[in-house]
Amino acid sequence: MSINKLIEKIVQTNNPTVAGLDPKLEYVPEYIKEKAFAKYGYTLKGAAKALLEYNKGLIDELCDIVPAIKPQCAYYEMYGYHGVKTLYKTMEYAKKKGMIVITDGKRNDIGTTMEAYAIGHLGLTQVGDEEIAGFNGDFLTVNGYLGTDGIKPLTDICAKYDKGIFVLVKTSNPSSGELQDQKIGDKAVYEVMGEMCENWGKDVMGKYGYSAVGAVVGATYPEQLQELREKMPHTFFLVPGYGAQGGGAKDVSYAFDKNGIGAIVNSSRGIMCAYKKEGCDEKDYAKAARREAIRMRDDIVSAINPMKLG
Amino acid sequence: MSINKLIEKIVQTNNPTVAGLDPKLEYVPEYIKEKAFAKYGYTLKGAAKALLEYNKGLIDELCDIVPAIKPQCAYYEMYGYHGVKTLYKTMEYAKKKGMIVITDGKRNDIGTTMEAYAIGHLGLTQVGDEEIAGFNGDFLTVNGYLGTDGIKPLTDICAKYDKGIFVLVKTSNPSSGELQDQKIGDKAVYEVMGEMCENWGKDVMGKYGYSAVGAVVGATYPEQLQELREKMPHTFFLVPGYGAQGGGAKDVSYAFDKNGIGAIVNSSRGIMCAYKKEGCDEKDYAKAARREAIRMRDDIVSAINPMKLG
Repeated sequence: MSINKLIEKIVQTNNPTVAGLDPKLEYVPEYIKEKAFAKYGYTLKGAAKALLEYNKGLIDELCDIVPAIKPQCAYYEMYGYHGVKTLYKTMEYAKKKGMIVITDGKRNDIGTTMEAYAIGHLGLTQVGDEEIAGFNGDFLTVNGYLGTDGIKPLTDICAKYDKGIFVLVKTSNPSSGELQDQKIGDKAVYEVMGEMCENWGKDVMGKYGYSAVGAVVGATYPEQLQELREKMPHTFFLVPGYGAQGGGAKDVSYAFDKNGIGAIVNSSRGIMCAYKKEGCDEKDYAKAARREAIRMRDDIVSAINPMKLG
Repeated sequence: MSINKLIEKIVQTNNPTVAGLDPKLEYVPEYIKEKAFAKYGYTLKGAAKALLEYNKGLIDELCDIVPAIKPQCAYYEMYGYHGVKTLYKTMEYAKKKGMIVITDGKRNDIGTTMEAYAIGHLGLTQVGDEEIAGFNGDFLTVNGYLGTDGIKPLTDICAKYDKGIFVLVKTSNPSSGELQDQKIGDKAVYEVMGEMCENWGKDVMGKYGYSAVGAVVGATYPEQLQELREKMPHTFFLVPGYGAQGGGAKDVSYAFDKNGIGAIVNSSRGIMCAYKKEGCDEKDYAKAARREAIRMRDDIVSAINPMKLG
């Protein structure tokens, strides 16, 4: 199961972080862009090729120390189907290098439509007698606003292909409270969503106490993070909001259990643009990313209990 | 503005319906599949080519009587990036034929990430000095669970490029009530979401009384549809759930205002698989779709007030 593999990989690398690959063209070093545009012109294809080259460089430097990548679909769809091809090729490359892939798509729909997303992103698509992976991710982020009809098709596919999901529960943005903090009786909307996650996870439990149904809970709300960690003991957390958005190691530490597991913390811009912050030669962008990934790992590991498989 | 154009096109065709293009491979006539697989093998590319051929046939027969198509991203992503190319080519073909395109992606995220989705699906992507459309849709369906941070980047792009969105408010599925019907004080979650839509729409008002921020409200909950039509006078409705899911003409009629406008009703399977239901020669699949589109149009128009631009 993907959730078991993710936890094992985190413990093996002693690193509960994921590198968010949200590649904007402005992040990509000039020498990579020049090469791609010289060959393909100023086209979506040229941009997509530049992003792929940039991603591969990052993956090469991160794959032995960071357990997973989290490509954000939006930054690939922005470049049309050429960008989506780069998403696929990035995922394929990361998987070849042994990394786990969390596709950040926040997909949501119902019934057979949700099943189509699940098959496309996590499962195998039937074409004649062939079964072919559309994207072959290990996890997909999803939005539970439509209730069980939107999640059940996913957990079925997760069970069939040993994959996992992360459901949005309490997001890291300033306006997340407009709906998520509103009270339904004496519970906040995010608590209700959290309870649904615990329920949905019951049929797809992994071996370390966490199910294939994870939750997205932002580092920017440490109080709710602490509260939800307690109320959702079987739900693994994907934690955005560290670094650029303001969350620190102390804040994210609440996402972890007493065994130092239970969460994976994302950083995107911090890692991707480390070379700009450092002011080093742009050709060293990937090595700068590695240095930042190590700094982030050490920062977070110092704030949580030593990891041990429960 | 897309919302003005959509309303004008609905009045011009006297048809407040949209053809959902959710092409499963099993819907595609054998002769189309055989041709594609003979050329490209049983591959994702072969499947994607078959879907495109099928869609083009439908568009040819529908473009003069149906104002819009609504391709559902899930059924394209299922075939990987080849499927996403078919999504783009389908949209391009429909637009060339004068149809309006509502991309059903239910996208959601925050800040610059939501902006990336908005640019990719509705706007123009900057590559060097070039500005290129990623998908070039007229509308995108979105999920508002993340609050204003997730919608403002969209309405900014809508204003810049004269495009529109549909926000999920009350979905048509059986479990939609698990979260959406829960009470926040004396209001249901879907009412709170509806109020947010009315607010978000204020800055992007169109000329017929409806804003660029529309809402998805299911035909399977006619009571809520009636209630929301009253409470959301400036919000145009996209109504799923007619036909296969159980909604009838009387049910959807509540989505319309006294001038017979204010909503567009979707049918996917009913139109796409009309040839199977009719039992006609599969080579007549597109003509059967046209017959069903006419039947559906007449059914709904008979239940609402005669259309007039307010």
